[in-house]
Amino acid sequence: MPPTTLSCDALTQIVTEIFLRGGLTPLHADALARVIVAGEGDACKSHGIYRIEGCLRTVKAGKVVPDAVPVVQQDDSGIVRVDAKGGFSNAAFDMGVPVLAARCRDLGIAAMVINDCTHFAALWPEIEALTDAGLAAMAMCPSYASVAPTGGTQPLMGTNPFAFGWPRPGGTPYVFDFATSVAARGEIELHRRAGTPLPDGWAIAPDGTPTTDPDAALAGAMLPFGGHKGSAISTMIELLAGVMIGDQTSPEAREALGAMSLAPAHGELIIAFDPARFAAGRDGDPMARAEQLFDAIIGQGARLPSQRRFAARAETLAQGIPLTQDEITGLERLLEFGLDAVS
Amino acid sequence: MPPTTLSCDALTQIVTEIFLRGGLTPLHADALARVIVAGEGDACKSHGIYRIEGCLRTVKAGKVVPDAVPVVQQDDSGIVRVDAKGGFSNAAFDMGVPVLAARCRDLGIAAMVINDCTHFAALWPEIEALTDAGLAAMAMCPSYASVAPTGGTQPLMGTNPFAFGWPRPGGTPYVFDFATSVAARGEIELHRRAGTPLPDGWAIAPDGTPTTDPDAALAGAMLPFGGHKGSAISTMIELLAGVMIGDQTSPEAREALGAMSLAPAHGELIIAFDPARFAAGRDGDPMARAEQLFDAIIGQGARLPSQRRFAARAETLAQGIPLTQDEITGLERLLEFGLDAVS
Repeated sequence: MPPTTLSCDALTQIVTEIFLRGGLTPLHADALARVIVAGEGDACKSHGIYRIEGCLRTVKAGKVVPDAVPVVQQDDSGIVRVDAKGGFSNAAFDMGVPVLAARCRDLGIAAMVINDCTHFAALWPEIEALTDAGLAAMAMCPSYASVAPTGGTQPLMGTNPFAFGWPRPGGTPYVFDFATSVAARGEIELHRRAGTPLPDGWAIAPDGTPTTDPDAALAGAMLPFGGHKGSAISTMIELLAGVMIGDQTSPEAREALGAMSLAPAHGELIIAFDPARFAAGRDGDPMARAEQLFDAIIGQGARLPSQRRFAARAETLAQGIPLTQDEITGLERLLEFGLDAVS
Repeated sequence: MPPTTLSCDALTQIVTEIFLRGGLTPLHADALARVIVAGEGDACKSHGIYRIEGCLRTVKAGKVVPDAVPVVQQDDSGIVRVDAKGGFSNAAFDMGVPVLAARCRDLGIAAMVINDCTHFAALWPEIEALTDAGLAAMAMCPSYASVAPTGGTQPLMGTNPFAFGWPRPGGTPYVFDFATSVAARGEIELHRRAGTPLPDGWAIAPDGTPTTDPDAALAGAMLPFGGHKGSAISTMIELLAGVMIGDQTSPEAREALGAMSLAPAHGELIIAFDPARFAAGRDGDPMARAEQLFDAIIGQGARLPSQRRFAARAETLAQGIPLTQDEITGLERLLEFGLDAVS
């Protein structure tokens, strides 16, 4: 059966309805639907509609507050705080971002801390919200203890995503967003579902030996990217976006929830930079100079990150999002049965 | 002949004298001597006395201002600017760091930009200056176009060091400082001097093919660590610590100087975080929670970064710095002939 194509708006409406049916308030249902459809629309399947069930399972387990009302706090510092009040991070981010952007324009640099949130989404939608505002930004957060430090044998750090963006007025931004493990946990999940072995070097089994078996990897530990350097960056993320912001580290998040089939609870750190403020008084336009750098990268046959996502986005915006019949059936089931559809 | 052991103070005095003899003002001679002796004392040979000649060559070539007086500028933003006025970065950093630390305590987060400096040193002495003040910090800078972006074939990015530190009151800090290339350029230089081949995966030859020959690697391009992820981080450093701060990117630094035997001219970005401000109002002491994380890393047999440096430091502080007769002879020659000793 050929895939069914839905417009982004139509899919957003369906996903929003699923979350409303699952007990989320419109604030959260809308915020979750937008990031999930953005993932699906960018052909980033591991952050697309596949995530809906995990979110609903987390609601059903009582581990996220489905009607939380985030509170944004601002003072005379460079730190904007958003207390997510135990809800999903997405609405908290959306409420904080205009305050962060304003503070960043005031000071040149500012940070946003999201505390007490349940987090499941990619970081690039957040990064793009800031690049859309003409700012550069860095974002990071812990996740679940599932990655062994280099030289270790047991899961301790999370897959700890690290993301960065630079605005490109008139075009798609420079954005990267990657797990500091060799692979994202979602990628291992997809291998498990597909019954395919993992590439070498992704993971170790519970006994600390290398494995290509997705189940053994999920029971054991993933490995950091880039050896000791990636391990160090992952540790930095635990320190800055866990310990420093007074929120859970990856081992604490795992300990608190027990199951990794639920979305983890922790915080998040976003750092925003105003290129106009930093470059003030110096020669050269930073936007134009960045384009020279990008041209030099592309000119020698290398790629900028996220180009596959942006190409998919252009296609789905024009032609809609293709979904398999199984995916459509899954959405219909979630729409009909709500929380009863998930275990 | 057994190595001669010099105290840190004695070596600092010799290196300072060499730089004074080379035409640097006491401000710069002192700042350079301290970081070079710190490198040698930490058994970090590629940032030790080996660097003296490169500094003097840069002075002799007229590519650095030996008597520059850095100017620190502060306004109501979170950006502290230090104009190095074409001098070495080290004194500029030293003058800016108290202002950065104060601004960071005021705002919770602050940045320091060093512009128009000649840069040759490791970043960890700077990171440790901030961790000594109880702050966490991130530092980064471009260098020379010598690293190909992943998927490319030509040098474009620099080895672009990325460093981070977290304070550990009463002990040595958590610090990492690494090149975003697989290896630092200094490590390739040391292989060239020793006549030993490079490990696989470090570099490509001028024709874009993999090589283990140090000369071919230096003529071709090094590779980023961790594949496309390291390549993306290196690009971020060009954007934030080159383009955004209105200073030279790595290709521009190489173009401007021509020779890579001289220390490159560019800027630097340091971001400081006050853990006490970030953690305020949240449960748990961030210093104590960080120690739990470090204990968990060490407890499973993994290592914290920089431990070899700190062990060497403890030894050299107690017993002095061992130097070979060749190294002593080299220092004596530099002391006697000054700039005439370098080509």
